[in-house]
Amino acid sequence: MEQLDLVFSALADPTRRAILARLADGEATVNQLAEPFHLKLPTVSKHLKVLQRAGLVIQSRKAQWRPCRLEPAPLKDVADWVERYRRIWDERLNQLDAYLTELQEKEKMP
Amino acid sequence: MEQLDLVFSALADPTRRAILARLADGEATVNQLAEPFHLKLPTVSKHLKVLQRAGLVIQSRKAQWRPCRLEPAPLKDVADWVERYRRIWDERLNQLDAYLTELQEKEKMP
Repeated sequence: MEQLDLVFSALADPTRRAILARLADGEATVNQLAEPFHLKLPTVSKHLKVLQRAGLVIQSRKAQWRPCRLEPAPLKDVADWVERYRRIWDERLNQLDAYLTELQEKEKMP
Repeated sequence: MEQLDLVFSALADPTRRAILARLADGEATVNQLAEPFHLKLPTVSKHLKVLQRAGLVIQSRKAQWRPCRLEPAPLKDVADWVERYRRIWDERLNQLDAYLTELQEKEKMP
Protein backbone atom coordinates (compact mmCIF):
# COMPACT_ATOMS: atom_id res chain seq x y z
CA MET A 1 0.00 0.00 0.00
CA GLU A 2 1.32 3.41 -0.96
CA GLN A 3 1.87 5.98 1.79
CA LEU A 4 -0.53 8.41 0.08
CA ASP A 5 -3.26 5.70 0.23
CA LEU A 6 -2.82 5.50 4.01
CA VAL A 7 -2.83 9.29 4.36
CA PHE A 8 -6.01 9.86 2.30
CA SER A 9 -7.69 6.93 4.04
CA ALA A 10 -6.80 8.36 7.47
CA LEU A 11 -8.21 11.77 6.46
CA ALA A 12 -11.55 10.26 5.34
CA ASP A 13 -13.02 10.51 8.85
CA PRO A 14 -14.30 13.69 10.56
CA THR A 15 -13.10 12.63 14.03
CA ARG A 16 -9.57 11.99 12.77
CA ARG A 17 -9.55 15.36 10.99
CA ALA A 18 -10.75 16.97 14.24
CA ILE A 19 -7.93 15.24 16.17
CA LEU A 20 -5.41 16.68 13.68
CA ALA A 21 -6.96 20.15 14.06
CA ARG A 22 -6.60 19.82 17.87
CA LEU A 23 -2.96 18.70 17.56
CA ALA A 24 -2.23 21.65 15.26
CA ASP A 25 -2.57 23.77 18.44
CA GLY A 26 0.02 21.67 20.29
CA GLU A 27 0.75 18.27 21.82
CA ALA A 28 -1.98 16.40 23.69
CA THR A 29 -2.39 13.15 25.59
CA VAL A 30 -4.95 10.51 24.61
CA ASN A 31 -7.08 11.67 27.57
CA GLN A 32 -6.93 15.29 26.43
CA LEU A 33 -7.92 14.22 22.92
CA ALA A 34 -10.86 12.10 24.13
CA GLU A 35 -12.46 14.83 26.28
CA PRO A 36 -13.69 17.43 23.72
CA PHE A 37 -15.07 14.72 21.41
CA HIS A 38 -16.83 12.80 24.23
CA LEU A 39 -15.14 9.64 22.95
CA LYS A 40 -14.11 6.56 24.89
CA LEU A 41 -10.37 6.00 25.21
CA PRO A 42 -10.31 2.81 23.07
CA THR A 43 -12.08 4.72 20.26
CA VAL A 44 -9.50 7.52 20.39
CA SER A 45 -6.69 4.94 20.47
CA LYS A 46 -8.12 3.28 17.37
CA HIS A 47 -8.24 6.59 15.49
CA LEU A 48 -4.71 7.44 16.67
CA LYS A 49 -3.39 4.11 15.35
CA VAL A 50 -4.76 4.94 11.88
CA LEU A 51 -3.21 8.42 12.04
CA GLN A 52 0.13 7.00 13.26
CA ARG A 53 0.20 4.37 10.51
CA ALA A 54 -0.27 7.19 7.97
CA GLY A 55 2.61 9.08 9.60
CA LEU A 56 0.33 11.99 10.56
CA VAL A 57 0.70 11.62 14.32
CA ILE A 58 3.69 10.62 16.42
CA GLN A 59 3.23 9.45 20.01
CA SER A 60 6.24 10.05 22.20
CA ARG A 61 7.55 6.98 24.01
CA LYS A 62 9.87 8.92 26.27
CA ALA A 63 7.70 10.92 28.64
CA GLN A 64 5.45 9.24 31.22
CA TRP A 65 2.37 11.00 29.81
CA ARG A 66 3.18 9.97 26.20
CA PRO A 67 1.95 13.07 24.34
CA CYS A 68 0.80 12.89 20.72
CA ARG A 69 1.97 15.43 18.19
CA LEU A 70 1.08 16.29 14.63
CA GLU A 71 3.62 15.32 11.97
CA PRO A 72 2.90 17.67 9.06
CA ALA A 73 5.06 16.08 6.30
CA PRO A 74 2.25 13.84 4.88
CA LEU A 75 -0.05 16.88 4.75
CA LYS A 76 2.55 18.63 2.60
CA ASP A 77 2.46 15.54 0.32
CA VAL A 78 -1.33 15.96 0.03
CA ALA A 79 -0.90 19.67 -0.79
CA ASP A 80 1.75 18.83 -3.44
CA TRP A 81 -0.48 16.13 -4.94
CA VAL A 82 -3.59 18.32 -5.18
CA GLU A 83 -1.65 21.34 -6.44
CA ARG A 84 -1.31 19.82 -9.94
CA TYR A 85 -5.09 20.19 -10.37
CA ARG A 86 -5.13 23.91 -9.48
CA ARG A 87 -4.87 24.91 -13.14
CA ILE A 88 -8.06 22.92 -13.84
CA TRP A 89 -10.23 24.41 -11.10
CA ASP A 90 -8.90 27.92 -11.88
CA GLU A 91 -9.90 27.45 -15.55
CA ARG A 92 -13.33 26.17 -14.51
CA LEU A 93 -13.90 29.19 -12.23
CA ASN A 94 -12.76 31.57 -14.99
CA GLN A 95 -15.20 29.94 -17.43
CA LEU A 96 -17.99 30.37 -14.89
CA ASP A 97 -17.02 34.03 -14.42
CA ALA A 98 -17.03 34.64 -18.17
CA TYR A 99 -20.43 32.95 -18.48
CA LEU A 100 -21.95 35.05 -15.69
CA THR A 101 -20.53 38.26 -17.21
CA GLU A 102 -22.06 37.26 -20.57
CA LEU A 103 -25.46 36.75 -18.92
CA GLN A 104 -25.27 40.15 -17.22
CA GLU A 105 -24.33 41.86 -20.52
CA LYS A 106 -27.33 40.25 -22.21
CA GLU A 107 -29.64 41.51 -19.46
CA LYS A 108 -28.37 45.07 -19.97
CA MET A 109 -29.36 45.01 -23.66
CA PRO A 110 -32.58 46.83 -24.51
CA MET B 1 -21.28 11.06 5.69
CA GLU B 2 -19.59 14.37 4.97
CA GLN B 3 -18.63 15.19 1.38
CA LEU B 4 -14.97 15.53 2.40
CA ASP B 5 -15.09 11.95 3.80
CA LEU B 6 -16.21 10.66 0.41
CA VAL B 7 -13.56 12.71 -1.40
CA PHE B 8 -10.64 11.58 0.80
CA SER B 9 -11.89 7.99 0.69
CA ALA B 10 -12.08 8.10 -3.13
CA LEU B 11 -8.53 9.46 -3.31
CA ALA B 12 -7.14 6.64 -1.11
CA ASP B 13 -6.59 4.36 -4.10
CA PRO B 14 -3.75 4.60 -6.67
CA THR B 15 -5.95 3.49 -9.62
CA ARG B 16 -8.57 6.13 -8.84
CA ARG B 17 -5.85 8.80 -8.57
CA ALA B 18 -4.45 7.59 -11.93
CA ILE B 19 -7.95 7.85 -13.48
CA LEU B 20 -8.18 11.47 -12.25
CA ALA B 21 -4.72 12.21 -13.69
CA ARG B 22 -5.86 10.79 -17.06
CA LEU B 23 -9.09 12.87 -16.99
CA ALA B 24 -7.06 15.99 -16.21
CA ASP B 25 -5.87 15.72 -19.84
CA GLY B 26 -9.44 15.62 -21.15
CA GLU B 27 -12.65 13.58 -21.35
CA ALA B 28 -12.46 9.81 -21.80
CA THR B 29 -14.84 6.88 -22.17
CA VAL B 30 -14.83 3.92 -19.78
CA ASN B 31 -13.07 1.90 -22.54
CA GLN B 32 -10.38 4.56 -22.94
CA LEU B 33 -9.86 4.61 -19.16
CA ALA B 34 -9.59 0.81 -18.92
CA GLU B 35 -6.95 0.40 -21.63
CA PRO B 36 -3.80 2.01 -20.12
CA PHE B 37 -4.39 0.35 -16.73
CA HIS B 38 -5.09 -3.12 -18.19
CA LEU B 39 -8.26 -3.22 -16.13
CA LYS B 40 -11.51 -5.02 -16.86
CA LEU B 41 -14.49 -2.78 -17.60
CA PRO B 42 -16.44 -3.74 -14.42
CA THR B 43 -13.38 -2.80 -12.32
CA VAL B 44 -13.14 0.61 -13.99
CA SER B 45 -16.89 1.10 -13.57
CA LYS B 46 -16.59 0.33 -9.86
CA HIS B 47 -13.81 2.90 -9.43
CA LEU B 48 -15.78 5.45 -11.46
CA LYS B 49 -18.82 4.99 -9.20
CA VAL B 50 -16.70 5.84 -6.15
CA LEU B 51 -15.29 8.92 -7.93
CA GLN B 52 -18.77 10.00 -9.07
CA ARG B 53 -20.22 9.60 -5.57
CA ALA B 54 -17.44 11.89 -4.31
CA GLY B 55 -18.32 14.41 -7.03
CA LEU B 56 -14.87 14.09 -8.62
CA VAL B 57 -16.05 12.66 -11.95
CA ILE B 58 -19.14 13.38 -13.99
CA GLN B 59 -20.30 10.96 -16.68
CA SER B 60 -22.29 12.61 -19.45
CA ARG B 61 -25.69 11.04 -20.13
CA LYS B 62 -26.25 12.96 -23.37
CA ALA B 63 -23.74 11.61 -25.87
CA GLN B 64 -23.90 8.02 -27.13
CA TRP B 65 -20.32 7.37 -26.00
CA ARG B 66 -20.97 8.79 -22.47
CA PRO B 67 -17.61 10.42 -21.80
CA CYS B 68 -16.31 10.94 -18.24
CA ARG B 69 -14.85 14.26 -17.17
CA LEU B 70 -13.01 15.51 -14.11
CA GLU B 71 -14.96 17.81 -11.80
CA PRO B 72 -12.28 19.81 -9.97
CA ALA B 73 -14.38 21.51 -7.23
CA PRO B 74 -13.84 18.77 -4.57
CA LEU B 75 -10.08 18.93 -5.23
CA LYS B 76 -10.21 22.64 -4.44
CA ASP B 77 -11.96 21.70 -1.15
CA VAL B 78 -9.04 19.34 -0.38
CA ALA B 79 -6.53 22.11 -1.18
CA ASP B 80 -8.43 24.56 1.05
CA TRP B 81 -8.59 22.01 3.88
CA VAL B 82 -4.88 21.14 3.80
CA GLU B 83 -3.82 24.77 3.37
CA ARG B 84 -4.51 25.51 7.05
CA TYR B 85 -1.61 23.20 7.98
CA ARG B 86 0.92 24.95 5.70
CA ARG B 87 2.10 27.15 8.58
CA ILE B 88 2.97 24.00 10.57
CA TRP B 89 5.03 22.25 7.88
CA ASP B 90 6.75 25.54 6.97
CA GLU B 91 7.73 25.98 10.64
CA ARG B 92 8.97 22.39 10.82
CA LEU B 93 11.11 22.84 7.69
CA ASN B 94 12.50 26.11 9.05
CA GLN B 95 13.41 24.39 12.34
CA LEU B 96 15.19 21.66 10.38
CA ASP B 97 17.05 24.29 8.35
CA ALA B 98 18.13 26.10 11.51
CA TYR B 99 19.28 22.82 13.08
CA LEU B 100 21.36 21.88 10.00
CA THR B 101 22.94 25.35 9.90
CA GLU B 102 23.82 24.99 13.60
CA LEU B 103 25.47 21.61 12.91
CA GLN B 104 27.49 23.10 10.05
CA GLU B 105 28.61 26.04 12.22
CA LYS B 106 29.78 23.61 14.90
CA GLU B 107 31.82 21.64 12.36
CA LYS B 108 33.58 24.83 11.24
CA MET B 109 34.77 25.55 14.79
CA PRO B 110 38.40 24.64 15.48
